[in-house]
Amino acid sequence: MHVDLLITHAAQLLTLAAPGPRTGRALADLGLVEDGAVACRDGRIVAVGPTREVLAQVDSAAETLDARGRVVMPGFVDAHTHVVYAGDRAAEFEQRVQGATYLEIMAAGGGIMSTVRATRAASLDQLMDQTRARLDRMLRLGTTTVEAKTGYGLDAETERKMLQVIAALDRTHPLDLVPTYLGAHAVPAEYSGRADEFVDFVVGELAQLKAEGQPIEFVDVFCDAGAFTVEQSEAVLTQALALGYKLKIHADEFAHLGGASLAGRLGAVSADHLAVTPPEEMRRLAEAGVMGVLLPGTSFGLGHTHYADGRAMVEQGVAVALATDLNPGTCPCESMPFMIALACRGLRLSPAEAVVAATLNAAWAMGRGDRVGSLAVGKQADLLVLDTTDYRDLAYRFGGNVVQRVVKQGTVVV
Amino acid sequence: MHVDLLITHAAQLLTLAAPGPRTGRALADLGLVEDGAVACRDGRIVAVGPTREVLAQVDSAAETLDARGRVVMPGFVDAHTHVVYAGDRAAEFEQRVQGATYLEIMAAGGGIMSTVRATRAASLDQLMDQTRARLDRMLRLGTTTVEAKTGYGLDAETERKMLQVIAALDRTHPLDLVPTYLGAHAVPAEYSGRADEFVDFVVGELAQLKAEGQPIEFVDVFCDAGAFTVEQSEAVLTQALALGYKLKIHADEFAHLGGASLAGRLGAVSADHLAVTPPEEMRRLAEAGVMGVLLPGTSFGLGHTHYADGRAMVEQGVAVALATDLNPGTCPCESMPFMIALACRGLRLSPAEAVVAATLNAAWAMGRGDRVGSLAVGKQADLLVLDTTDYRDLAYRFGGNVVQRVVKQGTVVV
Repeated sequence: MHVDLLITHAAQLLTLAAPGPRTGRALADLGLVEDGAVACRDGRIVAVGPTREVLAQVDSAAETLDARGRVVMPGFVDAHTHVVYAGDRAAEFEQRVQGATYLEIMAAGGGIMSTVRATRAASLDQLMDQTRARLDRMLRLGTTTVEAKTGYGLDAETERKMLQVIAALDRTHPLDLVPTYLGAHAVPAEYSGRADEFVDFVVGELAQLKAEGQPIEFVDVFCDAGAFTVEQSEAVLTQALALGYKLKIHADEFAHLGGASLAGRLGAVSADHLAVTPPEEMRRLAEAGVMGVLLPGTSFGLGHTHYADGRAMVEQGVAVALATDLNPGTCPCESMPFMIALACRGLRLSPAEAVVAATLNAAWAMGRGDRVGSLAVGKQADLLVLDTTDYRDLAYRFGGNVVQRVVKQGTVVV
Repeated sequence: MHVDLLITHAAQLLTLAAPGPRTGRALADLGLVEDGAVACRDGRIVAVGPTREVLAQVDSAAETLDARGRVVMPGFVDAHTHVVYAGDRAAEFEQRVQGATYLEIMAAGGGIMSTVRATRAASLDQLMDQTRARLDRMLRLGTTTVEAKTGYGLDAETERKMLQVIAALDRTHPLDLVPTYLGAHAVPAEYSGRADEFVDFVVGELAQLKAEGQPIEFVDVFCDAGAFTVEQSEAVLTQALALGYKLKIHADEFAHLGGASLAGRLGAVSADHLAVTPPEEMRRLAEAGVMGVLLPGTSFGLGHTHYADGRAMVEQGVAVALATDLNPGTCPCESMPFMIALACRGLRLSPAEAVVAATLNAAWAMGRGDRVGSLAVGKQADLLVLDTTDYRDLAYRFGGNVVQRVVKQGTVVV
């Protein structure tokens, strides 16, 4: 057959060919092929495997890449981001480094509310431009699919503006964006002291957004100390479920309230953060088939030395995914390779486990496991060529960028 | 006057104009100019300051860069690296992540000795090619001057091969390399159990290297548990001093043996690592004018949560520099921006302190403070243009590369 793009002779081809998310020990199976090749046509993978076998199926190729001495693998899938926001919080970071507490910064009008003010004030074009620059950097670091949350509007107008930015960039940027509505990210200043009323507002908004046909795949809620209680979170997620949305939950980042159990009860696709989740809750996640999305960049960004116990989750059989949690407060980092490096140090995953968590499992955690996250015939041709002979360099090295080329839907974009 | 390169209208120009290394509170003075400019001729800076004042001195420029919305600052100076080596230790990293102890890895022939074997086995060209690739990546991350140590040869022939690589790359690569002889990096297998005899060999080698006129600026020794004692270190450094070399010492990375005090007694330029240095030793370093070179990437690379107490050193008046410690065992990282991000989290430096430590102080720590590390008339035109309006992004963001352009001796090289 004739193909658009043929990549041959990869020193290591990581196919991750598997039907579903990996749990426990099975995490470490990368489907590694030495001297591997992949062929793409019309944006999809049409052949993958040992170079000899792939070449036997291909008569001609519009473009050929020789990947000798290189690793070829699926593009990274970033399953939890707050990539849409205006402004930054570098000044606040400096205050924190110099000893100001998070509460002092909040009292001075900083923290998440400063980003809400900036995002409300930004025009659609400003918000689009700032977000696009972040997506460009993510793409250069190998991310090909990204989940993107609302939640810096917290009012009817700005949340819709964020959804509009996500939908427009999904159409116009090489990266695929998956929209998540996080209307219950924090209680906005105008509802101060009236969190239950704000939850009622969000519940009403969900019905309204559905009626408008807004592009939303997931609904998420921040269930933690200083954010929303389990009861409040349940009110939001129950409404979302009734409306047919898939569910995610921010749980156990700072305090263990029971958000992970709630995720299990409601059949959420993922529970995210899980930094302080006790072992019995891990077992519940495993039994309920809820994926754990771990965000080690947040611990690093805050200068914490405590990380989620990723090792224990894997041992308990939780299917674990990695994500950046890209956001201006705790993790201004766009790099999935850095998350892999952190996962091996902070979460005690092996390099292979971390790679599965950053690709195939991350795809399942955002409902795209059937389309991306592994290299199999019929899947989207989203893949990376790494400037190394050994995939373990993703974990071993840090602070640089080992990604040499990025292919998105069969086209070389980096 | 006519100039070769003119950079104008920087949102922030960091001059760091100062006569010597910064200690204590003075560390934080960046010499920040808003709407700043710099002009270069024949590889040197000929004018620097507010754009209006610089333009008044310049009649014409062969090349002009508009740095509106950008930060302009000195190139990074990496004051402690083991950049010359062959092979990697990714497999060993995987073993460590999966629970193998450093001692188990050593017993299986791993650790520093595996790099010594690979470096001895590599041809001059192989060693040169592998090192050049690392220097290329360092340059893209904004490093313009780098200290480079021997110490993976540990025999007469390979140590000379490493010196030859350093000298050749200093001539042929845009980066400037400063050579340090670290013949006493570890006791090689052939001297196992005979460390004193190996120290005698190194002392003899020093005289021989001097007689040969080998290009060496500093002599360093690894004074720590599992390496060399204070007495053995003193024997090496005393000989080096007698031969006219400047001194450095690896001290207090794992155990507090007294290496920092030895540095003070012998008038070393710097004591490096200092992860477990007690307060009274910090005071001795400050009094003796020995600079502290801190290497937070090593703590990170090992997955440790303990970092050197940089904050206490600054408070005690120690002039602090930052470096990568780039090496295949504990820190396979080429990024000075990542060291700044780590310094603000692990060492508790402010963003401004970390920037001074990564530029001007690092230059003084390698004997080049009169030539590089700040933007002043007469100094080498080694400078960076950052893709941000705020230098604090170097500390706040992490895992990416905010360096947009690199100018080396007046020429745009990235």
